[in-house]
Amino acid sequence: MHAVQFKSFGSPTEVAECVELADPGPLAADQALLAVEATPINPSDVLTLTGQYGTLPRLPATPGNEGVGRVLAVGSDVKNVRVGDVVLLPVGTGTWREKIAAPAARLIPLPTSADKLQLAMLAINPPTAYLLLRDVVELKPGDWVVQNAANSGVGSYLIALAKLRGIRTVNVVRRESLVEPLRAAGADAVVVDGDDLAKRVAQATAKAPIRLAIDAIGGESTMRLAQCVAPGGTIANYGALSGQACRVAPQDLIFRQVTLRGFWLTKWFTSATPADQQAVFGELVKLMVDGTLRTRIEATYPFAKIKEALAHAMRPGRDGKILLVAAT
Amino acid sequence: MHAVQFKSFGSPTEVAECVELADPGPLAADQALLAVEATPINPSDVLTLTGQYGTLPRLPATPGNEGVGRVLAVGSDVKNVRVGDVVLLPVGTGTWREKIAAPAARLIPLPTSADKLQLAMLAINPPTAYLLLRDVVELKPGDWVVQNAANSGVGSYLIALAKLRGIRTVNVVRRESLVEPLRAAGADAVVVDGDDLAKRVAQATAKAPIRLAIDAIGGESTMRLAQCVAPGGTIANYGALSGQACRVAPQDLIFRQVTLRGFWLTKWFTSATPADQQAVFGELVKLMVDGTLRTRIEATYPFAKIKEALAHAMRPGRDGKILLVAAT
Repeated sequence: MHAVQFKSFGSPTEVAECVELADPGPLAADQALLAVEATPINPSDVLTLTGQYGTLPRLPATPGNEGVGRVLAVGSDVKNVRVGDVVLLPVGTGTWREKIAAPAARLIPLPTSADKLQLAMLAINPPTAYLLLRDVVELKPGDWVVQNAANSGVGSYLIALAKLRGIRTVNVVRRESLVEPLRAAGADAVVVDGDDLAKRVAQATAKAPIRLAIDAIGGESTMRLAQCVAPGGTIANYGALSGQACRVAPQDLIFRQVTLRGFWLTKWFTSATPADQQAVFGELVKLMVDGTLRTRIEATYPFAKIKEALAHAMRPGRDGKILLVAAT
Repeated sequence: MHAVQFKSFGSPTEVAECVELADPGPLAADQALLAVEATPINPSDVLTLTGQYGTLPRLPATPGNEGVGRVLAVGSDVKNVRVGDVVLLPVGTGTWREKIAAPAARLIPLPTSADKLQLAMLAINPPTAYLLLRDVVELKPGDWVVQNAANSGVGSYLIALAKLRGIRTVNVVRRESLVEPLRAAGADAVVVDGDDLAKRVAQATAKAPIRLAIDAIGGESTMRLAQCVAPGGTIANYGALSGQACRVAPQDLIFRQVTLRGFWLTKWFTSATPADQQAVFGELVKLMVDGTLRTRIEATYPFAKIKEALAHAMRPGRDGKILLVAAT
């Protein structure tokens, strides 16, 4: 089978290669064999290839953390899935390969009619958006949050999830052309990033106090979000699209008691109860199957074109996700 | 009487002037008239003159937030102080003047034998150090904290207050010549700031987990402190000696769950109970009178030399506090 593999950390398009690996060996009684149908390239995958992510695999390794598969075979004890079922791949198992063997108990069956490309992106970005809105500060209907990178995967899910809870979003983007599409997608306000951001955000929200800012960019963009939140507000950083350290002015930290912290989904996976995880995933599957949660897809590539796919995923100004898909 | 006054915000040595003002008018029954004997120049005073502080007075105004005075006269109802007593000036009352009238109830009498220059610095920096160690994270004897600007007023008080509680300090300084003096003053470890700070701090502490970092500098110095704390650690910023925004790498925020927040003594003055404030000040007076709390003094100036005093207080590499004192 085809699989993506890397033997050293470095430039993703150089170190990632499509190789031929043997199919997974005979199934254990509790396992299922899956054909991977779609698996996305996330920013965390790029950081894993460069060696900059928070947890790194022993090398050689196959990247990829989520996706959708079809059951090809099941072990003798497996009851919860059947051959032909469409399932979510277990998170963090190296999904950029054509076939994968997994404990059947970890598989979440999906309606066969569902949009597989959208569902392939369910396990990382939607819970990130969901938990950023749930676990950082307590928000109630009518409250405002501000986020940058509003056009990203997490950004688009966050707009939809906030709307469901009656939370209003001010969305910061880097170009004017994104204003209308985000409004159409449910954004309450959209502003273009720049020096007087706090002033324009205050206009857009009629000066409502904003207790939560969500930052995926870092650098000066974090500093401008710090100026947008109310005294005592919190900035939750979950990404570093600028490649720069987050900056916050001491005036905002000291005189306005703003707090900067990070959010890491991996931490939630290791610390949340199984019941909480099932509840969150159950809700997200439902919202993705009924079309409430969607994000834009810019292109799909077969595993054999991994270098082109990575180059595309890393291109500035990209306007949708890149996924690897099974050759048809 | 002589008083310092400024009529606009700007360069401190330009806007601050020594002027002649009328003495305070007739005393109310509950007031005392004080001769200001010593009042320090703090960084917050400089930021007030430039207009960058968190609260700003209406202009024209007299700067100065703390000091020591001698009672010259008391109103008819005053019982708690007598003419000739040495007292702490009430905090935040514009103390850079020769005479000040104040509600007697707010005055804290001091032993007449005590070191007036040291006591003049009791109300701002010692409680800042005390509360940074008490209110940000819970610390127990044997725990380590790391601080930069360890040679500052707050820094030297913090070393002494930590020692009293059995908390160990790693002190980050900008030049090698400060290592021995700080060790002599009770620092458990002293390291010179630089790129591999986290590594050298880990060596100095035998890799003990550090849950609190205290930052008065901002910029890259904050970023290096973030690398020194353990996962889940907190950086408390209370100053911006570099003039730069605090920086923290998203890796530290996200993967290591480091939090950055601010500390502002003014916030504590407005939110802490009177009982808590009295307890803290009572303890600090005792520690200053018995000599446990001391900081270096570099020079004193009369009110008439305010411009020279400010220029001196703002000089890089200064190695002790600057105070204004009554002409002798």
